[in-house]
Amino acid sequence: MDTASKLIKSWMNNAGLIATVDPMQNVIGSWPSENASSPSIHLGSHYDTVINAGKYDGPLGLLLCISAVEILRLEGYEPKHFINILGFCDEEGIRFSSTFLGSSYLCGTFDLNFLDNRDSEGNTMRELLESRGMDTSQFNKAKPLISKDDLFLEPHIEQGPVLENLDLPLGVVTGIAAQSRIHVSITGKSGHAGTTPLELRKDALTTAAEMILAVETLFDANSNARATVGQINNYPNAINAIPGKVEFTIDLRHPVTAGLNQLKEELLEKLNLIIQKRDLPCEIDFLQSVDSITCDRGIQKAMNKALAKHQKSVTSFTSGAGHDTLKIAQTCRSGMLFIRCRDGLSHHPDEYTSPEDIRVALNAWVDVIRELDQNFPES
Amino acid sequence: MDTASKLIKSWMNNAGLIATVDPMQNVIGSWPSENASSPSIHLGSHYDTVINAGKYDGPLGLLLCISAVEILRLEGYEPKHFINILGFCDEEGIRFSSTFLGSSYLCGTFDLNFLDNRDSEGNTMRELLESRGMDTSQFNKAKPLISKDDLFLEPHIEQGPVLENLDLPLGVVTGIAAQSRIHVSITGKSGHAGTTPLELRKDALTTAAEMILAVETLFDANSNARATVGQINNYPNAINAIPGKVEFTIDLRHPVTAGLNQLKEELLEKLNLIIQKRDLPCEIDFLQSVDSITCDRGIQKAMNKALAKHQKSVTSFTSGAGHDTLKIAQTCRSGMLFIRCRDGLSHHPDEYTSPEDIRVALNAWVDVIRELDQNFPES
Repeated sequence: MDTASKLIKSWMNNAGLIATVDPMQNVIGSWPSENASSPSIHLGSHYDTVINAGKYDGPLGLLLCISAVEILRLEGYEPKHFINILGFCDEEGIRFSSTFLGSSYLCGTFDLNFLDNRDSEGNTMRELLESRGMDTSQFNKAKPLISKDDLFLEPHIEQGPVLENLDLPLGVVTGIAAQSRIHVSITGKSGHAGTTPLELRKDALTTAAEMILAVETLFDANSNARATVGQINNYPNAINAIPGKVEFTIDLRHPVTAGLNQLKEELLEKLNLIIQKRDLPCEIDFLQSVDSITCDRGIQKAMNKALAKHQKSVTSFTSGAGHDTLKIAQTCRSGMLFIRCRDGLSHHPDEYTSPEDIRVALNAWVDVIRELDQNFPES
Repeated sequence: MDTASKLIKSWMNNAGLIATVDPMQNVIGSWPSENASSPSIHLGSHYDTVINAGKYDGPLGLLLCISAVEILRLEGYEPKHFINILGFCDEEGIRFSSTFLGSSYLCGTFDLNFLDNRDSEGNTMRELLESRGMDTSQFNKAKPLISKDDLFLEPHIEQGPVLENLDLPLGVVTGIAAQSRIHVSITGKSGHAGTTPLELRKDALTTAAEMILAVETLFDANSNARATVGQINNYPNAINAIPGKVEFTIDLRHPVTAGLNQLKEELLEKLNLIIQKRDLPCEIDFLQSVDSITCDRGIQKAMNKALAKHQKSVTSFTSGAGHDTLKIAQTCRSGMLFIRCRDGLSHHPDEYTSPEDIRVALNAWVDVIRELDQNFPES
């Protein structure tokens, strides 16, 4: 972490910015403006990563921001607004099972409950931060860097296949989908596969199979829905034993929160019909829910204008994946630019975005920053 | 193993038998007859066990044989036939993934390919046996103990719920079902659960779910069928990732081999329809198949006669589980007695058969042995 933040700080310094690392390990590069009382434009993305992942998810966006500002400075551009580049320390939330740590800290909306989360070695986040000299009692008390009149802009790889299928390098994000994670546990009765007749079976896996297909049918009514059973664990999981217990997870997403709530109702109705028919005890737990956000229309307009110069057509769509923007949009008007990645693949060592696409993204991003600095959108 | 075989040998000696341990670690207790030229009656079961299992599967049958012979000897009974009690060293086939090692050795039908199987530490069975002083080049060459004119009788817990549902302690086995084990591997494409639309998904788990329900429908046409998906492994098995690969197993059983072959055909037809519809690459491998066997009718008749004295009614049915009898029935006429076990549970620490049922089983088993020794069935 220290190695990474120092390296990013040196890149920001080389680009001519005043760079600091805050106590959370966010790296902040400032480009001051003559106009000290104006709202700020914040640009950035996260520099942490999931384990065994690619190198584009997060860092590519941060590097695009640094490079774009360097280009503008070399052009002799003089910004009307304070411009900050933000490298967020922890978006993925791997070590402490807690997402958006860096961006929420900079918004003054850090969830203090996270301080008691423990890492795999049993240390709390509070202990770790205090051992580094941070006074956690002061959390959320100082005036945050990001405030309500500012703008936040994040470039990021798409982590999905939409741009690849449209054969376009870039896309404008209209909002970030609402999301729910659900855990289902079915209790059947294990038994010998060779001896137990059908009428005496309580097979947890056949019940789960029916539920998995019910989750898939949620797509039928709504092409904007995303409904995925990603994880399944079967017990005892032996070739000659009837499954006695199955646990699986459901990931539900919808562009807007109301649509997600509708999806949840439909899902519960379908699952309850199966539970009644199969008559096996089943627990359904809603693990977490996140509301959708809408990207600022003024920012979207500026991005559409910039993109029209750099590719054959302009497209915009909702992000199914969460990003720092999801958190920051609760504080100030925000917008995102998506960059095509090969096969829509992310969180994988084979994650890839071509140098050609990165070049297009950089040129467009310079235009986006200039446009929004010159024509700061009305709120 | 040595501890167990020595203990069993001592029990046989205490029961008045001439006991030996053969080079495979089968324990053999002999009760000689005046009538040296007559065929033998072999009684027994295995004394090995699966890991983390109960204590009745196998050993209960062996102990019943020892106790029954002890009772007959104490009565002053003089057998017309040589009677051997056989404690088989390895029926479950855990260490070397190879079943019926003890019983096939005693029949002279040991599969020599098994000698090259390795245990989890990499030792072959051949190395292990030779390090114990056994000449494996002599396998299957000496005259085996069990030969075609003999009888083999095995008492065993049911490992299923049929007797419990009929409220009967004992049942006569009519045969052992044919069995096939099948491995299915579906290759989809992993992707982000939040970003990938339905039309771009290649979800291996929804395909597997449809197949699991298709396996269940095999029961529809035939109540004698047993069709179970016992094991499923999903990759990457992450809450927010579309399953990119699923492997699962199918355990198919039918009382007769022809019925099993019919089941396999039906299954393949159903799976192929799903593969065509879903269009995901899928490999279907038949891991192993075992033909059904029929228990000798003369032995069944003697068992029915004995059971009628000890419980309110007599029942007989096919065993869905495999046993040493499955192997030995290829060499000589064989029969099995099932003893009720609680909840039909086996291969589990909670496996249980009540002392009352064991007492009924012992009394009936004494009658079965006497009946067959007195009225050796015509072949």
